[in-house]
Amino acid sequence: MNEVSWEQITVDCLLRIKKQKPLIHCITNYVVTNFTANVLLASGALPAMVETPNEAGMFASIASALLINTGTLTQAQLDEMRLAAISAHESGTPWVLDPVAVGVLPVRSQFAAELLSYQPTLVRGNASEILGLSRAAGGPGESSGRGVDSGDDVDSALEAALYLTKKYQTLVAISGPVDLITDGRIQIRCGNGHKLLTQITGGGCALGAYLAAYLTTGLTPIEAVAAGHATYGLAAERAAQLAKGPGSFAALFLDELANLDPRMVREGSKIW
Amino acid sequence: MNEVSWEQITVDCLLRIKKQKPLIHCITNYVVTNFTANVLLASGALPAMVETPNEAGMFASIASALLINTGTLTQAQLDEMRLAAISAHESGTPWVLDPVAVGVLPVRSQFAAELLSYQPTLVRGNASEILGLSRAAGGPGESSGRGVDSGDDVDSALEAALYLTKKYQTLVAISGPVDLITDGRIQIRCGNGHKLLTQITGGGCALGAYLAAYLTTGLTPIEAVAAGHATYGLAAERAAQLAKGPGSFAALFLDELANLDPRMVREGSKIW
Amino acid sequence: MNEVSWEQITVDCLLRIKKQKPLIHCITNYVVTNFTANVLLASGALPAMVETPNEAGMFASIASALLINTGTLTQAQLDEMRLAAISAHESGTPWVLDPVAVGVLPVRSQFAAELLSYQPTLVRGNASEILGLSRAAGGPGESSGRGVDSGDDVDSALEAALYLTKKYQTLVAISGPVDLITDGRIQIRCGNGHKLLTQITGGGCALGAYLAAYLTTGLTPIEAVAAGHATYGLAAERAAQLAKGPGSFAALFLDELANLDPRMVREGSKIW
Repeated sequence: MNEVSWEQITVDCLLRIKKQKPLIHCITNYVVTNFTANVLLASGALPAMVETPNEAGMFASIASALLINTGTLTQAQLDEMRLAAISAHESGTPWVLDPVAVGVLPVRSQFAAELLSYQPTLVRGNASEILGLSRAAGGPGESSGRGVDSGDDVDSALEAALYLTKKYQTLVAISGPVDLITDGRIQIRCGNGHKLLTQITGGGCALGAYLAAYLTTGLTPIEAVAAGHATYGLAAERAAQLAKGPGSFAALFLDELANLDPRMVREGSKIW
Repeated sequence: MNEVSWEQITVDCLLRIKKQKPLIHCITNYVVTNFTANVLLASGALPAMVETPNEAGMFASIASALLINTGTLTQAQLDEMRLAAISAHESGTPWVLDPVAVGVLPVRSQFAAELLSYQPTLVRGNASEILGLSRAAGGPGESSGRGVDSGDDVDSALEAALYLTKKYQTLVAISGPVDLITDGRIQIRCGNGHKLLTQITGGGCALGAYLAAYLTTGLTPIEAVAAGHATYGLAAERAAQLAKGPGSFAALFLDELANLDPRMVREGSKIW
Repeated sequence: MNEVSWEQITVDCLLRIKKQKPLIHCITNYVVTNFTANVLLASGALPAMVETPNEAGMFASIASALLINTGTLTQAQLDEMRLAAISAHESGTPWVLDPVAVGVLPVRSQFAAELLSYQPTLVRGNASEILGLSRAAGGPGESSGRGVDSGDDVDSALEAALYLTKKYQTLVAISGPVDLITDGRIQIRCGNGHKLLTQITGGGCALGAYLAAYLTTGLTPIEAVAAGHATYGLAAERAAQLAKGPGSFAALFLDELANLDPRMVREGSKIW
């Protein structure tokens, strides 16, 4: 795909975010707002949770990137998410759709499928969510998930991911023990990560915001998304070595995100 | 009450949750969503905060158990809580009512009393809240509390608790230095716990969700509720030994919840 | 200004909050509710996040002090904030306005300016927010900020602060490397603090609630606000010495807030 090594791409992204401090507009679920904001701050980005009526749409065109996460939808959020997605689409702001619990619950499934028409730069979820979103958008997708956890393997969602990439010209990233990122033509895998990320709330949700920050770095979107998975997972691996359980892990993970340096990334990132 | 020891009952509950991974539907206050979700994950259960219109009622019949906490009511939450309580009642899903600040504030007091008609499996609160809920439901209850903290002793709420158990066929658990659990016939006490749990926000609220998970274990409800108080309090005791204040305690408490094993429970649980 | 030393004033405030346990009514943004509540609990105060329709106004007159933070406004919050501000104004309850992202976003800017007419005891923000609020209220204010972070120096907002103090008889506190507090006549500086406070979400927002607690101590408001900046910043300095990054810092900061004692305050506070 490119002549520059993945290690170098990933280091570039890491440093650019710390230097450029992109402003990331998040409309996300209220369980994970705090953790998401802290993940962005630790990485060098600036979080802004804006969903006030008459502000969210405008703000999506000012921000460097936008995250929409369907975790805990209220009626007011539905309206502001739609306006923000339209605004990002029209102004060319990169944006990430994280279809939490799509496929299981009806309101969000229909709504997330509608948001696809505003062409997110990236759709990020676990395998069950990607299957659910594809199904809601008329594509293939038979899932065994119950919503927030994934009952499905990453590769079981590949066909659904390819359907989404082709119909909506979006990237799709499927989280799992080995993450899969595809634009419909090429497939990239990332082996960084740790299971403790699934034992704290927001481990996946905050990744959506983190990837939105990576989309502002100026690298190609698929490079940036792969690099983001690697650094996020690497910080988790490093935190897990010191953690005594999920509580200490959450704090250490933020420490490690803030302290990642080029050497660690060169030695530890696993993209292929 | 039974021939099996409390130690064995408590160990059984601990292991069943880790194995069965019950899905706990929480409609709770927005101050404690993150901590509540992390408490459930640490114990092995799966949290799902669903209160989207047209989803909450449906979801309450899918989930293994339901928690309703009145801490920060919005109008939209009121509507979804009612639908979820009705759905749980009709489908036989065990559910917990945590009447935060009931007795002091008028809207939630009237609303919590209404929810009692959908027969929660368990009402859990501090003494002031149990007194306030009883009073709102036409029973005895003179309180000195200001809402979130309890100004009342556990035993001062016993009469109110008995009133609620008899009128609504519910269990009542009153949190305090020694917790009191009753179904109206027998009274069980649990001496596990630590005052640092009252110095972090959500210490009581997350217990409501945790007990909802225990109600899915297949033991009798009163056994499960007593066992849940013991393991929750035991994790707090262990965390407090290592903590240097409330901030480190909160993280260590999640670690200890995740790391509890049968030996610790046999040696440390205090139920009588 | 007074004959008692700042060290003594600050120690007095610290001890009075631990003894009096003031109940602080917070209507704040949903990103920082948990951290804000934990900051209040660690300091000895009791948080109550009440914004239920028909409860917030009433509660603002019962509580010891009120915080209104415009971080993530919903329509329902707008209504309850207005009622709470009116109630606090009429009942003489001290209250703090934290105009998060005012100046950048239109709805909150107009609304925050309206709230000024209910005469907050204190307006607290970074320099960009104070400039934005002044501008929204018809005063001076040219800002380079993007909302949540401050792109402006503390002293660049002095003229705006003086405008607000004179027009609305309020104190103004501007957060920065050295904080500035003024009632329009005198200016007090506080040099305590640490940049890690800006690398976790809610570092400034929780300070607003913390200062609301200090306003209940019985000292003059400007003394209490200066003392609050000193103890808050001192806890941050002490936590930063032990922290390995923003995640461990957040937990340690709560520990240090809880553990501050008169000796530490006498040796470490920096007010002039």
